[in-house]
Amino acid sequence: MDSISDQACIVGIGHTEYSKDSGRSELKLACEAIGAAIEDAGLSPADIDGITKYTMDNNDAVDISRSLGIPHLRFFSEVAYGGGGGPLGTILLAAMAVVTGQANAVVAFRAMNERSGRGTSRFGQASTAAGAAGTASYAAPYGLFSPAQMVALAAQRHMHLYGTESKHFAEIALACRHHANLNPDATMYGRPMTLEDHQNSRMISTPLRLLDCCLETDGGAAVIVTKADRAQDLRQPPVYIASGGLGGGPWNHRFMVRDIESPATEATIIAERLFPDAGITHADIDVLFIYDHFTPLVLMALEEFGFCKRGEGKDFVGGGRLRWPDGELPLNTSGGNLSEGYIHGMQNTIEAVRQLRGTARCQVADTKHAFVSAGNAVPTSAMILRGAR
Amino acid sequence: MDSISDQACIVGIGHTEYSKDSGRSELKLACEAIGAAIEDAGLSPADIDGITKYTMDNNDAVDISRSLGIPHLRFFSEVAYGGGGGPLGTILLAAMAVVTGQANAVVAFRAMNERSGRGTSRFGQASTAAGAAGTASYAAPYGLFSPAQMVALAAQRHMHLYGTESKHFAEIALACRHHANLNPDATMYGRPMTLEDHQNSRMISTPLRLLDCCLETDGGAAVIVTKADRAQDLRQPPVYIASGGLGGGPWNHRFMVRDIESPATEATIIAERLFPDAGITHADIDVLFIYDHFTPLVLMALEEFGFCKRGEGKDFVGGGRLRWPDGELPLNTSGGNLSEGYIHGMQNTIEAVRQLRGTARCQVADTKHAFVSAGNAVPTSAMILRGAR
Repeated sequence: MDSISDQACIVGIGHTEYSKDSGRSELKLACEAIGAAIEDAGLSPADIDGITKYTMDNNDAVDISRSLGIPHLRFFSEVAYGGGGGPLGTILLAAMAVVTGQANAVVAFRAMNERSGRGTSRFGQASTAAGAAGTASYAAPYGLFSPAQMVALAAQRHMHLYGTESKHFAEIALACRHHANLNPDATMYGRPMTLEDHQNSRMISTPLRLLDCCLETDGGAAVIVTKADRAQDLRQPPVYIASGGLGGGPWNHRFMVRDIESPATEATIIAERLFPDAGITHADIDVLFIYDHFTPLVLMALEEFGFCKRGEGKDFVGGGRLRWPDGELPLNTSGGNLSEGYIHGMQNTIEAVRQLRGTARCQVADTKHAFVSAGNAVPTSAMILRGAR
Repeated sequence: MDSISDQACIVGIGHTEYSKDSGRSELKLACEAIGAAIEDAGLSPADIDGITKYTMDNNDAVDISRSLGIPHLRFFSEVAYGGGGGPLGTILLAAMAVVTGQANAVVAFRAMNERSGRGTSRFGQASTAAGAAGTASYAAPYGLFSPAQMVALAAQRHMHLYGTESKHFAEIALACRHHANLNPDATMYGRPMTLEDHQNSRMISTPLRLLDCCLETDGGAAVIVTKADRAQDLRQPPVYIASGGLGGGPWNHRFMVRDIESPATEATIIAERLFPDAGITHADIDVLFIYDHFTPLVLMALEEFGFCKRGEGKDFVGGGRLRWPDGELPLNTSGGNLSEGYIHGMQNTIEAVRQLRGTARCQVADTKHAFVSAGNAVPTSAMILRGAR
């Protein structure tokens, strides 16, 4: 075999509520989300034999297996780079495991008390050598600490090169908020946003305003992956993993020093193989899930994953293209990291599965292919999912 | 495909010297080892597009790719549980990546200043939820802190159940030391050991004596994995990955509370699939590499991986069976974690590759199959390697 294409499926999805204060441990959040995903698939914990996780997740696979009654683990692995490697990287590892016969049914999950801080969110700490003690130590003395600050530099460069303006970034936030207001489970349900609201929101780091930045959320989200042949007789219609990839390189100094003109970015490297592996083109994508940590990076992802050319993002996002039901390419239809809840992107994948099952609230008609990407400006991951319909 | 069997090969090996004080950074150690492995394979950094690592390794894949001139990463992932998941788990992930077409050539490595402590060895700290802040918090109040203490409990239980004695544990240490004294690169080269030395060495935690415990070492070790078809025209004879597996479960509270009578342990779960996947039996194994953190766990690994029955380890290790050149099943022929150097087992895999290439110092005649296992009593990994000869 030369690829995993269509040989593995997502057969279960589950998540907790998305809140600002879960009131319980990260282990409990993980188990609730995973338990819900197992139930959704019509499986039992005894059927699960693999767990993949974001390296940064504080939960441990052994603790989870003990808590849920998973008898054995035949596969366990992790992907680093937070919301970059994690969201689709964990699912890719799960798919590789079932396709190569290393495991039968694998959980990929993310759970955290990111907002309430009851858990230990290690962002900005030296949890890896690339943390504050590593590469970041070159920037920290100059006051460059937070992802928002770092992304602001790349955003300004984009504005300078291509004439992109804050109102273009706003289109992304507005599309996500629009969808969140159609999703009672979203954090920002009942809180509509106008362009004026966006433009008046406080400046975080020029040009990023508050409403360009994702939420911080407590919660958990999980998916179950198994082999395509096994998937056929489970409870839900299978969602096929048409292709998946990881991408990164020596230029990925976390969010810092992003050369937005580089022909090779973490996104272009993945795009190169993702569409051929799935046997489709961009025109075949029905619904978009682009990791929305900061709106300018969504715009750059659209360009670098090839949905439009470099510098054309500002026009691409306009005209309501990203909004359900009338837009031709609805984005993050449950509200995304910006307005539904920020489970480091895992909740976007869950909504992609709903779209391909035909059970989304903002259901796009005749969905066959969903594009799902993870946090860019760091080593990242992406996937094309294909519906059974 | 249902397995990776013989579809991926180890084509390059490299390591630094093994010392008590490397005098340089862990990043430098990693790059030296990886650079040597790339050179050994006859490849260049531009050929590498994947890196897998032990989660506990302080080095970052991006830092390594930048330092070595690796242009892009198309695959990166990690395995937790230190010397358990890491040693063969990283190589298994690399194999899965090349077999499924996610990458062309993947590095698996371990590098650390474990002895000199210039790096940050996080053992015993809460680097995961299963660290001191997690499961270990149930044991720490009672004074159960270190792996040696925890393993001592299981060792005593083995002695009670089966009549195993300290002199049986010594056989393992003596075999490794014997091989180290034939390996000028080994830390314990020129320092022979007798049974009397072992029995007189100071008690660390009853029944573990100093000479039952592995070294602490500064150094790095790496292997390169690529697809079997690509491996044919490289510099070295390819070493095939006949099978590989990970195993763990809810009973793996780090080293604690080991039920040595359980029919299902991390080792038995792997053994179940490892030999059938490789299409061989235990009798086909020519040379053994069993992770030697503590001698009693090597004895238990021999039993639980099925080389002998439970309780028969004490007899199995006797009669010089484990010593080259006359023993029928030489163990850790370069000296192992106990006497060569402790790069969390990665150096054992490197020696296994040498054995299958026919270039080991203590070369076993007509080697075809090597069994390599990682640290047990935690979630672990193992592999059967097959020579091209």
